[in-house]
Amino acid sequence: MQADIITIGDEILIGQIVDTNAAFLGKTLNKIGVEVRQIRSISDNKTAIVEAFTEAQNNVDLVVMTGGLGPTKDDITKHTLCEYFDDTLMFYPEVMVHIEELFKKYVKAPVNALNRSQAMLPSTCEQLFNHHGTAMGMWMQKENTVFVSLPGVPFEMKYLVREQLIPRIKETFSLSALVHKTMMTYGLGESIIAEKISDWEQALPPHIKLAYLPNLGRVRLRLSAKGTNETKLLNEIDAFFDALYPLIGNHITGFESQEPIEMQIGDALKAKNWSLATAESCTGGALAALFTKNAGASAYFKGAVVSYATDLKQSILGVSAETIAQFSLVSEPVALAMAKGALQQTGADVAVATTGNFGPTKGDTDAEIGTVCIAIITPEQELLNTFCFGKNRERNLQKTLNKALELLRQKITA
Amino acid sequence: MQADIITIGDEILIGQIVDTNAAFLGKTLNKIGVEVRQIRSISDNKTAIVEAFTEAQNNVDLVVMTGGLGPTKDDITKHTLCEYFDDTLMFYPEVMVHIEELFKKYVKAPVNALNRSQAMLPSTCEQLFNHHGTAMGMWMQKENTVFVSLPGVPFEMKYLVREQLIPRIKETFSLSALVHKTMMTYGLGESIIAEKISDWEQALPPHIKLAYLPNLGRVRLRLSAKGTNETKLLNEIDAFFDALYPLIGNHITGFESQEPIEMQIGDALKAKNWSLATAESCTGGALAALFTKNAGASAYFKGAVVSYATDLKQSILGVSAETIAQFSLVSEPVALAMAKGALQQTGADVAVATTGNFGPTKGDTDAEIGTVCIAIITPEQELLNTFCFGKNRERNLQKTLNKALELLRQKITA
Repeated sequence: MQADIITIGDEILIGQIVDTNAAFLGKTLNKIGVEVRQIRSISDNKTAIVEAFTEAQNNVDLVVMTGGLGPTKDDITKHTLCEYFDDTLMFYPEVMVHIEELFKKYVKAPVNALNRSQAMLPSTCEQLFNHHGTAMGMWMQKENTVFVSLPGVPFEMKYLVREQLIPRIKETFSLSALVHKTMMTYGLGESIIAEKISDWEQALPPHIKLAYLPNLGRVRLRLSAKGTNETKLLNEIDAFFDALYPLIGNHITGFESQEPIEMQIGDALKAKNWSLATAESCTGGALAALFTKNAGASAYFKGAVVSYATDLKQSILGVSAETIAQFSLVSEPVALAMAKGALQQTGADVAVATTGNFGPTKGDTDAEIGTVCIAIITPEQELLNTFCFGKNRERNLQKTLNKALELLRQKITA
Repeated sequence: MQADIITIGDEILIGQIVDTNAAFLGKTLNKIGVEVRQIRSISDNKTAIVEAFTEAQNNVDLVVMTGGLGPTKDDITKHTLCEYFDDTLMFYPEVMVHIEELFKKYVKAPVNALNRSQAMLPSTCEQLFNHHGTAMGMWMQKENTVFVSLPGVPFEMKYLVREQLIPRIKETFSLSALVHKTMMTYGLGESIIAEKISDWEQALPPHIKLAYLPNLGRVRLRLSAKGTNETKLLNEIDAFFDALYPLIGNHITGFESQEPIEMQIGDALKAKNWSLATAESCTGGALAALFTKNAGASAYFKGAVVSYATDLKQSILGVSAETIAQFSLVSEPVALAMAKGALQQTGADVAVATTGNFGPTKGDTDAEIGTVCIAIITPEQELLNTFCFGKNRERNLQKTLNKALELLRQKITA
């Protein structure tokens, strides 16, 4: 069963936003066995939308579109649906009641005419009731193709997909199984891997497809399988991956995980009954923010000291003036002292500390731009490392976060 | 002049990656006056690519595609270009020399047959020479439409676009001017703004288009204009934006192309010679991270205490056990005490503190999920506020950050 995703909005075409909705929909539809044929991002004008509808109807069973459902004039999806389905808008009192309740609770302002217009929906649509917003989802069918319209606000769209669209797709369509699994390799180029595994690749059956995803010293190998039985497909894929170990085994680091690495660290910490604190200079709180954004972080995350100004490294974290004078701000001894200070101030079992110079200028330090020291202390060991990442501030932050998480995971799961 | 963007690769359709290439291309093409009609993401198979080519050729002057140019079997763009252009692949010795040099320098391995295949390009293509990788860009014309193929690796793609594609587009096509400018507003809903500015909106001329981009307590208003003279369009847009100040002036914080709000706060702090610290419970370091990600933050940002665990509110920030017992963890007195503690620990002039319950569970506190208290202390005043944001953790974080920045900016610039 095939689907198209259509995302509507000039903000996508002019690059004002990155289309994360499409990626979420692609991933979620795939998981239940809906194959996405294409993603199409178009302008919010009638001609473009109708043309995309027509092309999709000739090719797929399901069209999922997002965007263009707000109360203002630039939102056009609903009117275009009416035109395409030869339908008219109808007033839905229960939607109006819901909009009024939302306004009473959150906006604390009376509902105006524009909001009232959001209670108007095509008369033949089935609602996907949006409990979290004023724009309803809609499910409409024309010949053999189902058209689903969802609001573009990511939170509301995701809620409607998870709670309402997915169960309904499962009821309506007969779905096949789609399985993707991605192996991570480090240290070999794409073409060298391809050469080493060429016989293996030749032997893949037609229903299993291989993709190479190269990126800065890392190549991911994805196997995608299509069939009727998910478990059987997964077993097949695993058997093929197993056969790669004799060929490139020492470059394989595992599989792309569903869980982000900071949650893997959290799980490992909980398993050991260890708690975590961070002492951050160059990362400025971003490391703590990565952990605390996940629900359940309080089970292992104690807190952080962001000692951005030099004097706070001394006053809160207890780094001695001598250590700073002798080794400089961006140095392994300072990182270690910061980590020790974090343990002392927070009572955590594990601490990670960062100090570095992200650029664009050298600031308070003599260190080359891009120099970063990371210290990790666990109840079992201390780890000190210095890296030279480059000249770009944004990339330096991301590289430092990735590296700190990578090292922390190594040490915690060791 | 109109263009289509085609991004090729199953990794986009299954949501394994978010298509940032398309957003970059959309933004960059717009800047030189190329209007993007649509973005289409398709599977790496011949039929899908040829169909997209055909549809594009009937509609646009330029097609820019990324992906499908690697050395391995899943990369198919080049063969499909040959088929579509009735062309054959030819060996380009200068490309081979370049590939060999790259391998000598970075891979330190001999070039294999797969790499050699990257020196094979359609005989009628004009190269966009990729100095940073092994996959060349290609420029080919069929009837009135130019097809450009670029590698999918973002760094290489961006380099080719900036250095080679953009100048070439400017030489080849006669371009109009496209101008976008986005005003940021905080604190009013989309429909309320629309009501307040309805007469203004009616008066916009046909070549200027308004879009509302609402997002968690913030609404961005984008004006897009199309014409021949960029300066004239910008002046026109500015005049229209100026007319919004009498209508919603106190909610306008500036323009998107300008500085983000946290940098405006930074500038205002520097102007007053005040320094800033944060004391964060529910925001977990994310507020500090917003400030410190910007270059130059050390001129006003002292540091942060992330007191995620309850005991750290007492031990580091000096919130008394009595205050917590009497008012509960999520309360204005606790937020105020946290802010005072941050001032004391860091020596900053201004502090902002957050304590709240983002959910999904109530955790250590009795407060309803979504309750957030924000305290701000400046040398001139104290501000205490309680908000009820809702049930969703991710949204609660974003709303709290937006609200804290909004209030801080108000107080600092007051």
